[in-house]
Amino acid sequence: MEINGVEIEDTFAEAFGIKVSRVLVTAATKKLAKIAATEATGYGTSVIGCPAEAGIDCYVPPEETPDGRPGYIIMICNPSKKSLDHELLERIGMGILTAPTTAVFDALDDEDEKLNIGFKLKFFGDGYEKELEIDGRKIHSIPIMSGDFLIESEFGIKDGVAGGNFFIMGDSQASALLAAQAAVDAIAAVEGTVTPFPGGVVASGSKVGSNKYKFLNASTNEKMCVTLKDEVEDTQIPENVNGVYEIVIDGVDEEAVREAMKEGIKAACTVPGIIKISAGNYGGNLGAYKIKLHDLF
Amino acid sequence: MEINGVEIEDTFAEAFGIKVSRVLVTAATKKLAKIAATEATGYGTSVIGCPAEAGIDCYVPPEETPDGRPGYIIMICNPSKKSLDHELLERIGMGILTAPTTAVFDALDDEDEKLNIGFKLKFFGDGYEKELEIDGRKIHSIPIMSGDFLIESEFGIKDGVAGGNFFIMGDSQASALLAAQAAVDAIAAVEGTVTPFPGGVVASGSKVGSNKYKFLNASTNEKMCVTLKDEVEDTQIPENVNGVYEIVIDGVDEEAVREAMKEGIKAACTVPGIIKISAGNYGGNLGAYKIKLHDLF
Amino acid sequence: MEINGVEIEDTFAEAFGIKVSRVLVTAATKKLAKIAATEATGYGTSVIGCPAEAGIDCYVPPEETPDGRPGYIIMICNPSKKSLDHELLERIGMGILTAPTTAVFDALDDEDEKLNIGFKLKFFGDGYEKELEIDGRKIHSIPIMSGDFLIESEFGIKDGVAGGNFFIMGDSQASALLAAQAAVDAIAAVEGTVTPFPGGVVASGSKVGSNKYKFLNASTNEKMCVTLKDEVEDTQIPENVNGVYEIVIDGVDEEAVREAMKEGIKAACTVPGIIKISAGNYGGNLGAYKIKLHDLF
Amino acid sequence: MEINGVEIEDTFAEAFGIKVSRVLVTAATKKLAKIAATEATGYGTSVIGCPAEAGIDCYVPPEETPDGRPGYIIMICNPSKKSLDHELLERIGMGILTAPTTAVFDALDDEDEKLNIGFKLKFFGDGYEKELEIDGRKIHSIPIMSGDFLIESEFGIKDGVAGGNFFIMGDSQASALLAAQAAVDAIAAVEGTVTPFPGGVVASGSKVGSNKYKFLNASTNEKMCVTLKDEVEDTQIPENVNGVYEIVIDGVDEEAVREAMKEGIKAACTVPGIIKISAGNYGGNLGAYKIKLHDLF
Repeated sequence: MEINGVEIEDTFAEAFGIKVSRVLVTAATKKLAKIAATEATGYGTSVIGCPAEAGIDCYVPPEETPDGRPGYIIMICNPSKKSLDHELLERIGMGILTAPTTAVFDALDDEDEKLNIGFKLKFFGDGYEKELEIDGRKIHSIPIMSGDFLIESEFGIKDGVAGGNFFIMGDSQASALLAAQAAVDAIAAVEGTVTPFPGGVVASGSKVGSNKYKFLNASTNEKMCVTLKDEVEDTQIPENVNGVYEIVIDGVDEEAVREAMKEGIKAACTVPGIIKISAGNYGGNLGAYKIKLHDLF
Repeated sequence: MEINGVEIEDTFAEAFGIKVSRVLVTAATKKLAKIAATEATGYGTSVIGCPAEAGIDCYVPPEETPDGRPGYIIMICNPSKKSLDHELLERIGMGILTAPTTAVFDALDDEDEKLNIGFKLKFFGDGYEKELEIDGRKIHSIPIMSGDFLIESEFGIKDGVAGGNFFIMGDSQASALLAAQAAVDAIAAVEGTVTPFPGGVVASGSKVGSNKYKFLNASTNEKMCVTLKDEVEDTQIPENVNGVYEIVIDGVDEEAVREAMKEGIKAACTVPGIIKISAGNYGGNLGAYKIKLHDLF
Repeated sequence: MEINGVEIEDTFAEAFGIKVSRVLVTAATKKLAKIAATEATGYGTSVIGCPAEAGIDCYVPPEETPDGRPGYIIMICNPSKKSLDHELLERIGMGILTAPTTAVFDALDDEDEKLNIGFKLKFFGDGYEKELEIDGRKIHSIPIMSGDFLIESEFGIKDGVAGGNFFIMGDSQASALLAAQAAVDAIAAVEGTVTPFPGGVVASGSKVGSNKYKFLNASTNEKMCVTLKDEVEDTQIPENVNGVYEIVIDGVDEEAVREAMKEGIKAACTVPGIIKISAGNYGGNLGAYKIKLHDLF
Repeated sequence: MEINGVEIEDTFAEAFGIKVSRVLVTAATKKLAKIAATEATGYGTSVIGCPAEAGIDCYVPPEETPDGRPGYIIMICNPSKKSLDHELLERIGMGILTAPTTAVFDALDDEDEKLNIGFKLKFFGDGYEKELEIDGRKIHSIPIMSGDFLIESEFGIKDGVAGGNFFIMGDSQASALLAAQAAVDAIAAVEGTVTPFPGGVVASGSKVGSNKYKFLNASTNEKMCVTLKDEVEDTQIPENVNGVYEIVIDGVDEEAVREAMKEGIKAACTVPGIIKISAGNYGGNLGAYKIKLHDLF
C-alpha cells in the first residue's frame, strides 16, 4: 500500500488502556490560557517515567467556552484511577490555579465516573470559597491573591486508549522530523487526542527489557536505530532510511486514536523524502488494541 | 522608599535552601531546544505539590555551546538530593532524550558534588552506547531511533536558594499582571535564576496551614486577596489596589536571587498603575535567607 | 446598554469600502506557514501610510486544504484595484514564494472579479514553469532553488469593508490592553475578518487633519487621549478611565465585520476594569457603513 | 576546505552597498516589543520588490535600554536615502507608534548622518507634544489614545552592506531547511546584522534578467534549482543534493556581515545531511563587496 508514493507497511500499532480526563483551561487571553495549559501538561510524555501522560488537545475560542473567554482543552492520563486523581489535583492546583486569570471546566463527554477535584481544591479557600453556577455547571469560586479562581466541582474520567503510534522513516533525519511535525499539526485538529511527547514527536523508541543489562525494564530498540543499521543484524531500517521519528497518540477512545493516526500518516506523506510508514507493536500480546495501518484508509 | 513613584515596602523576602542543578539542552535549532527545555521543566512550580521546581534560565547561542548548536540552560531544583537525582534522571530521560535532535551538558559552576545522571542513562543504549569527549567533557553517546543522543556523564548540584520573592500591587488586576510580566522579562536576563511558576508569575499566595480546615498544610493567604479586602479585617491590601501578583525566584545562590529581585522590581515599576511592591515572609523563622527589599537598591 | 456591567455607548462605527483578497498559504508545517503569512502581511496596518491593509484571518488544518498541508488564510486589502494587484504580486512574490515549502491558493468566496497573480508570477520560472490541476484549480508550478513553488493562477477580489471599529476604555492602561487582546482572540475566530494593526490592537487614534499644523492630513485625536483628559476641554475620556485601545477590523463584507465587532466587544467585557465601549466615526459623512453598537446585540 | 565533513566551495559572496538604520523598539514586555518589531519589519525581504529590507537584529533586556524596558533592535535598509527616510517614517509611524506601550530610540553607532524622523512624527501630537531628555537623548513625547508615545528626535543612518549570502545544499530539502534555521539562529547572535527573508531563509534564488522572457528583470536561477538538476545542462546541483536554501544577510558593515556568514556556515554544518556550502555572486562585477568563503575561517 502506498500514499503519495510512500510505502505503508502491513503492520499494526499496539495500544493500551488508560484512564483519561479532559479539562478546559480558560483565561483572559489565548496566550495566558496556553501558559497554564503548558505548565500543567509538562513532564508528561509517558508513564514509564513521568507521573502522567498529558498534552494539549485543542484550542476553544471565546464564544464556545462556558465563561466566554479563550481556552485550551488538555488531557491528563494515567492507568491508575488513584494516580489520575492525584495528578489532576496537583497539576490543576500547582499549574493552573497558580497561573494568571485562569478558570477550569470539565470537558469530557461520556465519562465513566466523576472525580471531585474542584470540591477538594475549594478547601484552599479556607472558608472564603463560594459556590456558583455557570452554564449549568456547579462551580467553586476560590479567592486567591489576584482575584477569584473558578473551578468546576467534578471532572469526568473514562477508559481511553494510550500508545496509538506510527513510525515515520525518511531519507534524512530532517525529512523524518519535518514529516513528524506535519503529522503533529494534522493530529492537533483531531479532537479527543493528544501527542504527549515533546512537540508531539518521539525521537527514541524502546523495547521491553534489555538484552545486556538485566536490571532494566526498557532499553533502546536497536533494530530501529538508524545509526546502528549497519551494525545490528536484524535491523528494520531500510538501507536508504537515515532518520526515524515516532508519533505516539493518547485518545478518549479507539476511534479518536484511529482518526489521529490516519490524519497524521496522510500529513507525513506530504513531505518530500519520506520512504516508509510503519508502526510499533509487541507481537500483539501486551496491548488491548491492535490498529492495522492498512485498515485506516 | 520609592522607585519611579512606586512605594517599596520596608519588609523582607524569606527564602529557603534547596539543591539546584543547571543543565544545558542543545538541539539542531533554537526552537527544538526550547521544546525539550519546556517539556523537562513543566509541572515544576513548587515542591509543595510538584515533584520539582524547574524553569528555563537562559538561552545560549551556538557559538557558546560545547557542540556549536543553540541551547537553553534549565534549572531543576529539589530540597532532597535523592529526589533531585530522580527528577534529573526522569526529566532528562523522558523529556529531553525523547525530544528531536537534543544533547545535554552540565552547566553548573562551583558545584558541591556531582550526580552520575549520564552514566545511568547510558544503559538505555543496551550495550551499543559509546563514550566520547567533547570540549573536555566526558560524554555518553546513546543510539536512539532518530540518531545518537549525547549526554554528559555527570551533572553538578549545589546548595542554592528557593523562594526569593516579591509582590506587585496594582490599581487593576491587569496592571499588576503586566508589571509581573515585565519583571519576568527582566529576571530572564539574570543568569543563574529561574521563575518556576506559569509564565514566571504566581496568581495565588498561600499561608502555612489553615484557620478553618485543620487537615490542610497550606491555604489561601486571605490577607493578600484583593477580592476579600473589604471582608477580611486585617487585610494587607491597600484600598486602591485591585490586583496582586507574586514573583518567585529560585537561584544558584543568594547573590543571584538578590540580583533577580532587584531587576524584577525595577522593571515592574516601569508599568503605569503599580502602587506598591512588597515581599512574602513567615516572620523570619522558617527560611535561611532574609532579603530586605530596601537593601537591594 | 450594559454587557457584564460595562457601558456600551449609543454610537456607531463608521466604516469604508475597500477591495479585499483572501489568500491561503500552505507549507510543510503550521509554523512554516505562519512565517510566510506573517512576512506577507507585515507593514500593513492602514493605507493611511502603508501600501496595504493586511492580516491573518484564520488557520486551516491539513485535512481542509487543497494540498493536505497546514495553512493560514491571509487577507490583503487596498481601496484601489490597481494597488491591490501590485500588493498581491509583491507580497506573494517577495514574502511567500521566497519562504520555505510554501504554496498559495485563492480562498475568497463570491468574488467580484479575478486577478491573474499566479499567471504573472509563473514567468519567474523562465520557461521551466509547468501547469497542474489540484483540487479542480489551475495551478502554476514554478521551479525555485529549494523545490517547486505552486500558486493558483487567479485570485478573487471583492468589495469589502474596512475600518469597522470599537474603543475599549479601562480603569488602567493595562486593563484596556488585556481586554483588547481578549477581543482580538475572539475576532480571530470570525472567518472573513482581520485586525490589521500590530497584534490586532491600535494604541493611537487619529482625527482628520490637524488644528495646529495645517500641512497634516491626520493628527492625534486629543479628545480621546487619556493623558490629556485634564487638559483638553471637550475630552471624551471619563474621569475614571486611564487607558483606551481601539480595535480596527477589515472584512469580506459588512456582516463579517459586524460579527467580529460583536464577538470582540463581548470578549472585551469579560476583563475586570473595563468601564465603557465606544466606537469611532466622522459624523457619518465619510464612510459607506454605519454600524450601531446597540444593534449588534 | 571542509567543516565537520561539509565541503566549503572556493567561491565568494557578492554583496552591495545599502543605507542602514538601527532602531530600538521598547515596550512594557518583551512580547509587546516583538509584536511592534515584527509589524514594522514585515514586507521587507528585498528591495527588488519590497519598499525596504528589514529585520530584527537582537533582543535587549530591560537593564540595558534607555527606559528600563525590554526591547528589540530592528534594522531598516534601502539603497536610497530618500526612500529610507520615507520607510523609517512610515514603518515607525504606522507599525510602532500604533502598537501598544512602545517607545523608539536610535541604536546606530558610527552613523554617517542623522534623519529627523522623531521631529517629523511629533507633529502628529497637534501641539500637545512635549520634549524630554532620557539617557542624554532628545525625546519627543506624543500623546496618543492609550498614553504617551516616546520617540528619539533623530535616527542615524550609515553606509552598510546588503546581500551577504551563502547557499546550504543538503541531501534532502528538509536537511537544508533545518541547517538554514540553525544558521539563522547563529546569525541572530551577531549584532549589527539581520536576515531579512521569511524566517531568515530564502527558498528561491534568482538570476539577473531572463533567458526566455525579455521583459523580466529577474528570474529563477535554473542552475541552482534542485528539481531541474536532471534537465538543465550546466546545473550546479550535485547529484546527491535534493534541497538548497540561501541565507541573505544585511549588516551595518562588512565586518558584521562576514562574522554572520562565518557563524551561520559553522552552524549549518552541524546538521546531518549537509553536503556543501556555496555562495552567490554575479562574477564580481555588480557588487562592491566580494567575500570569499575560505577567508572567513
